[in-house]
Amino acid sequence: MLPKTMKAAVLHGIGDVRIEKRPVPKPRAGEALVRVRAVGVCGSEIHYYREGRIGDAVIKEPVIPGHEFSGEVAALGSGVRGLEVGQRVSVEPGKPCWKCEHCAEGRYHVCRDMTFCGTPPNDGAYREYLAWPARLCFPLPRGVSLGAGAMMEPAAVGFQAVKVAPIQLGDTVLVIGCGSIGLVTIQAALLAGASRVIATDVLDYRLKVARSIGADKTLNPKRANVVEKVLELTGGRGVDVAYEAFGSTATYQEAIDAVRPGGRVGLIGIPAEDELPIGFHSARRREVHIQMVRRFVHQHDRLIRMLAAKKLSLDYLVTHRFKLDRIEDAFKLVQDYGDGVIKALITL
Amino acid sequence: MLPKTMKAAVLHGIGDVRIEKRPVPKPRAGEALVRVRAVGVCGSEIHYYREGRIGDAVIKEPVIPGHEFSGEVAALGSGVRGLEVGQRVSVEPGKPCWKCEHCAEGRYHVCRDMTFCGTPPNDGAYREYLAWPARLCFPLPRGVSLGAGAMMEPAAVGFQAVKVAPIQLGDTVLVIGCGSIGLVTIQAALLAGASRVIATDVLDYRLKVARSIGADKTLNPKRANVVEKVLELTGGRGVDVAYEAFGSTATYQEAIDAVRPGGRVGLIGIPAEDELPIGFHSARRREVHIQMVRRFVHQHDRLIRMLAAKKLSLDYLVTHRFKLDRIEDAFKLVQDYGDGVIKALITL
Amino acid sequence: MLPKTMKAAVLHGIGDVRIEKRPVPKPRAGEALVRVRAVGVCGSEIHYYREGRIGDAVIKEPVIPGHEFSGEVAALGSGVRGLEVGQRVSVEPGKPCWKCEHCAEGRYHVCRDMTFCGTPPNDGAYREYLAWPARLCFPLPRGVSLGAGAMMEPAAVGFQAVKVAPIQLGDTVLVIGCGSIGLVTIQAALLAGASRVIATDVLDYRLKVARSIGADKTLNPKRANVVEKVLELTGGRGVDVAYEAFGSTATYQEAIDAVRPGGRVGLIGIPAEDELPIGFHSARRREVHIQMVRRFVHQHDRLIRMLAAKKLSLDYLVTHRFKLDRIEDAFKLVQDYGDGVIKALITL
Amino acid sequence: MLPKTMKAAVLHGIGDVRIEKRPVPKPRAGEALVRVRAVGVCGSEIHYYREGRIGDAVIKEPVIPGHEFSGEVAALGSGVRGLEVGQRVSVEPGKPCWKCEHCAEGRYHVCRDMTFCGTPPNDGAYREYLAWPARLCFPLPRGVSLGAGAMMEPAAVGFQAVKVAPIQLGDTVLVIGCGSIGLVTIQAALLAGASRVIATDVLDYRLKVARSIGADKTLNPKRANVVEKVLELTGGRGVDVAYEAFGSTATYQEAIDAVRPGGRVGLIGIPAEDELPIGFHSARRREVHIQMVRRFVHQHDRLIRMLAAKKLSLDYLVTHRFKLDRIEDAFKLVQDYGDGVIKALITL
Repeated sequence: MLPKTMKAAVLHGIGDVRIEKRPVPKPRAGEALVRVRAVGVCGSEIHYYREGRIGDAVIKEPVIPGHEFSGEVAALGSGVRGLEVGQRVSVEPGKPCWKCEHCAEGRYHVCRDMTFCGTPPNDGAYREYLAWPARLCFPLPRGVSLGAGAMMEPAAVGFQAVKVAPIQLGDTVLVIGCGSIGLVTIQAALLAGASRVIATDVLDYRLKVARSIGADKTLNPKRANVVEKVLELTGGRGVDVAYEAFGSTATYQEAIDAVRPGGRVGLIGIPAEDELPIGFHSARRREVHIQMVRRFVHQHDRLIRMLAAKKLSLDYLVTHRFKLDRIEDAFKLVQDYGDGVIKALITL
Repeated sequence: MLPKTMKAAVLHGIGDVRIEKRPVPKPRAGEALVRVRAVGVCGSEIHYYREGRIGDAVIKEPVIPGHEFSGEVAALGSGVRGLEVGQRVSVEPGKPCWKCEHCAEGRYHVCRDMTFCGTPPNDGAYREYLAWPARLCFPLPRGVSLGAGAMMEPAAVGFQAVKVAPIQLGDTVLVIGCGSIGLVTIQAALLAGASRVIATDVLDYRLKVARSIGADKTLNPKRANVVEKVLELTGGRGVDVAYEAFGSTATYQEAIDAVRPGGRVGLIGIPAEDELPIGFHSARRREVHIQMVRRFVHQHDRLIRMLAAKKLSLDYLVTHRFKLDRIEDAFKLVQDYGDGVIKALITL
Repeated sequence: MLPKTMKAAVLHGIGDVRIEKRPVPKPRAGEALVRVRAVGVCGSEIHYYREGRIGDAVIKEPVIPGHEFSGEVAALGSGVRGLEVGQRVSVEPGKPCWKCEHCAEGRYHVCRDMTFCGTPPNDGAYREYLAWPARLCFPLPRGVSLGAGAMMEPAAVGFQAVKVAPIQLGDTVLVIGCGSIGLVTIQAALLAGASRVIATDVLDYRLKVARSIGADKTLNPKRANVVEKVLELTGGRGVDVAYEAFGSTATYQEAIDAVRPGGRVGLIGIPAEDELPIGFHSARRREVHIQMVRRFVHQHDRLIRMLAAKKLSLDYLVTHRFKLDRIEDAFKLVQDYGDGVIKALITL
Repeated sequence: MLPKTMKAAVLHGIGDVRIEKRPVPKPRAGEALVRVRAVGVCGSEIHYYREGRIGDAVIKEPVIPGHEFSGEVAALGSGVRGLEVGQRVSVEPGKPCWKCEHCAEGRYHVCRDMTFCGTPPNDGAYREYLAWPARLCFPLPRGVSLGAGAMMEPAAVGFQAVKVAPIQLGDTVLVIGCGSIGLVTIQAALLAGASRVIATDVLDYRLKVARSIGADKTLNPKRANVVEKVLELTGGRGVDVAYEAFGSTATYQEAIDAVRPGGRVGLIGIPAEDELPIGFHSARRREVHIQMVRRFVHQHDRLIRMLAAKKLSLDYLVTHRFKLDRIEDAFKLVQDYGDGVIKALITL
């Protein structure tokens, strides 16, 4: 029997998160009711907690944040096939319209009518139950943890980066920023055939994690000029592909300047500034391709296959776990980059 | 019999161009001696004339500018096949090393050892004779004028833009800037299957030329907000591909903002500023591809085929003609956008 | 007021087509009821009429054929937006599931649950009324005829061929077969930037039509060895892209053998034989790409834009018109290649 | 001091290989003299030994076969940079013209003027010394054996297959044939991000090797219907990409039939027959892309980087070693698939 009410972490404004009781939703036709078991704390949640907004997305009414999550199927709406109650699933948190030109042509991630979990005014996953389209619930293979299931959301961003700014077998790669997105981008680049991945971050403990998952060389921009060092390491040539996963003028410019003539840049990081003064002269002379990276599209099946085959591991990302009641501790740990945190997981 | 000396227009510094006598060069092995007959005046020549530099390329010693040219084969060095004395040719003005990784992989336009006609310290084409690799001399088909032959250089840039930021049959297209590069980009976009080309320029006489070569709609940014108008004209969707052929922060931003989700941008224009404050938020949300365009590679054979088939016409670009002795008049006309000028041609 | 019954041409078996009365269907939610006005006679209809089958698709029960059609919206089911009663529309005849992996990723044309008009056991368009998903009904622009609207179906195949076996601006092209599919492929190739299109057919009257729509050179294989002649016309090099739109061992082989090293082949034609003895040695040495072409996907919007812009004309394809009662005359004309027929249109 | 004469294995006709004395060649400008140390025995050498020909390439004069090789730089011609005497190198055995359209555009592997080591009438590598363009000699990184250096030639074919019939991260893959080419294709597919590789061969010992290098599932077509089994293993969907590395009608057909709708096929194997009866109906309905694979282009640098990074190992391929004097024993072992042979290496 499902309970009638559940606990949820509700953000009422800057720095004001409260644990409240909410009714348990009912799954509609085509939906699954997911008993949420693990939810990551992402930089975007920290932005809402600390600043009450990300760009145009502003908290006007109380909202439940959270979008990186996994759980168990608790109930099924009518017409759902291929899922069973009790099954462990990772949930893709963006629900597109599935009808517009972009959805029809297979790029639902840029659908203008996307409903995204935890982006105001849409409630997200820091709660016990959530009803969501069954086709966005991906059964976890045996041996894949609920934590890894929650981490599939950031991992999908790394896979997307490698899809839209692609790697040829044997390419050299630069990844700027070793937060969770940078780390999964390193993994995606290695899986896609990079011969060498150079990774950068200002936090040495993150560079250590980068090396542990296969980065061949790490640089701390506090101690090295990234572009100069990359050119030195590549015989003056530059890398074939650079991914930016931090989000600032300096790092956008580094990514653009570090690639070889004809090279590709994937810009993943979300800068705080509305405008970034970027120099294009050298990029133009090298005919650089700059690819903005937006979330992901059609990546969860691929992730599932790689996880099932044990070619991809995501458990290492989860460095800390908190119960829902202690979500503010998690927020504070993440915003302070405390205690070697990569990813804090809310477990329910 | 070839003469021993020839006339050349030599730029000694800002605003100081002199007609001087120079020895006629001798073609080396693999080279053709070209009797120059027509040379365009491009914006880059005006930069050297007016400012003595373009970015890092600075006039330190007197140099002969000029890089858009055609002529007749006057003599052949040893080992040249496929060319005959007297033949009319269009000349590709960039000479790569043909050995480095980039040349070997077919992207000689980003060769770091490129010698480019008329870029200091390399002498260019404002002179009677020039020796150049025969493989960079393309025989003009019957019925293609020497003026059109000189215009193949800018036309190649338009073809390159459409190659690297490609058009699918039926796409909608925006071209920003209707100078000669913008105009040939409009032609390339139409030839490649654009269903609709919207073109912009601040000079109405250029918009008129754009319409005469097939632009479906023209906008003057002095009288219309380009992005708003493009969205209105495309039902709020944006164009599939936008090409920027002006070179400024505002127009770079327009190109980026005017494309549909998942759309492509080709940045051709060379801005004066070292850094351009660009807003990336909307571009990121739409996962825009931004492709820098650098000159051209392997386009002259394609241009020749299109000209021979009468599917491409370039004669309309030449609005004014000057003898070499009057080159300063040409420079002044072009820098003042006088008398409805698109392209001034130096004829010899 | 809609009538209760309508006329339909029903195929009962080989050579047995009868005009019968059928109830007028009612549009369901999301559907439009289309008053059919023009339907083409395609080779596939002739196969069903003459042989009772195409491969695995066999007529077991009486079926209404017909799949190239346009008409007027006669009524709308619930929830339809963007269409109005009385509007003239071209109808895309394949209805995919819109849910499977292939549909979701934007390639609904290979959906395994496709319902295709007029392919047994699905009734097609040789009747007065047909209910069909509104999203597959494309309003015709002013000035585009109902005949052109019906011809959008074959035209979409030509556009598809050029999408999946793409042309670069200035490429040389071979199109084998100048039936309606070959002809629209010639148009698509020219629109996409082919510098030269060589076309072949055994029927001289079709070569004449090919020339009239822009084919630069035509060959009749009864009088010329196609591959030898193509090599001769291209200086021994071969064409960049070859499209096969006939369907036989000899022409498949011609397409494969006529392309340059690294060239592309689009195989559109449907051979009668289950197995075709093809020689691959030369293709392997030239690293040829061979692309099978299957109907079309996302092409109707593109066609509409090109038709609206008057960059594409399809009226010329319709050489003969028949009332529904005389459909057998149309079938006989088409199967005999009589009277210079390209496309016979059933008009209602 | 270099000797004046050297030993070479010369093929005089079918089954007639003799060890003879030949003058040591002198390196010309731009060439290195390579002291050959390791040469593989490939299927093509067996064809020449057993049948005196491969297709059009016929032994008319005595010829030295051998094309998979590594060695040490023994001397340098004038003008060579970047190589030193004594350096260990892997040699790319095909020498293109470097001037034609195909070479200029970066696809030298389809150059019509290719000189390929050991393809009659060009002498190959079964000899002590060979002079070859220095730019085709790739220094081996520390820790990479001469055997691995010789195996880079077949490995380059696997890399090429994955380049021209590309894999997306997470794709499922079928590799047909587990000879050395099939095995390196399995490695390339895994390195490029395949989530699952199914491999087939009629020899169980080769399937065992396939599993040892990472194939997830192996099938012996003597005991299983490959296409049926692949469909069963992929839930009826088919694999994303299939590579054929055997060369027969049955296996070409298997590769084509085993891919999903919209899937890609790379045909690497060289069939003995001039014509192969292939069924295209299902391939057409699934819009399959069939890519012929021809040797390789620009792959050696990539291989070197992967070997240096220890992401690729090739030593396992060499199962047997023979001195030059015993080359016939090697030929016999290979032609009989004896003693679990994958690759026999001639060592000097």
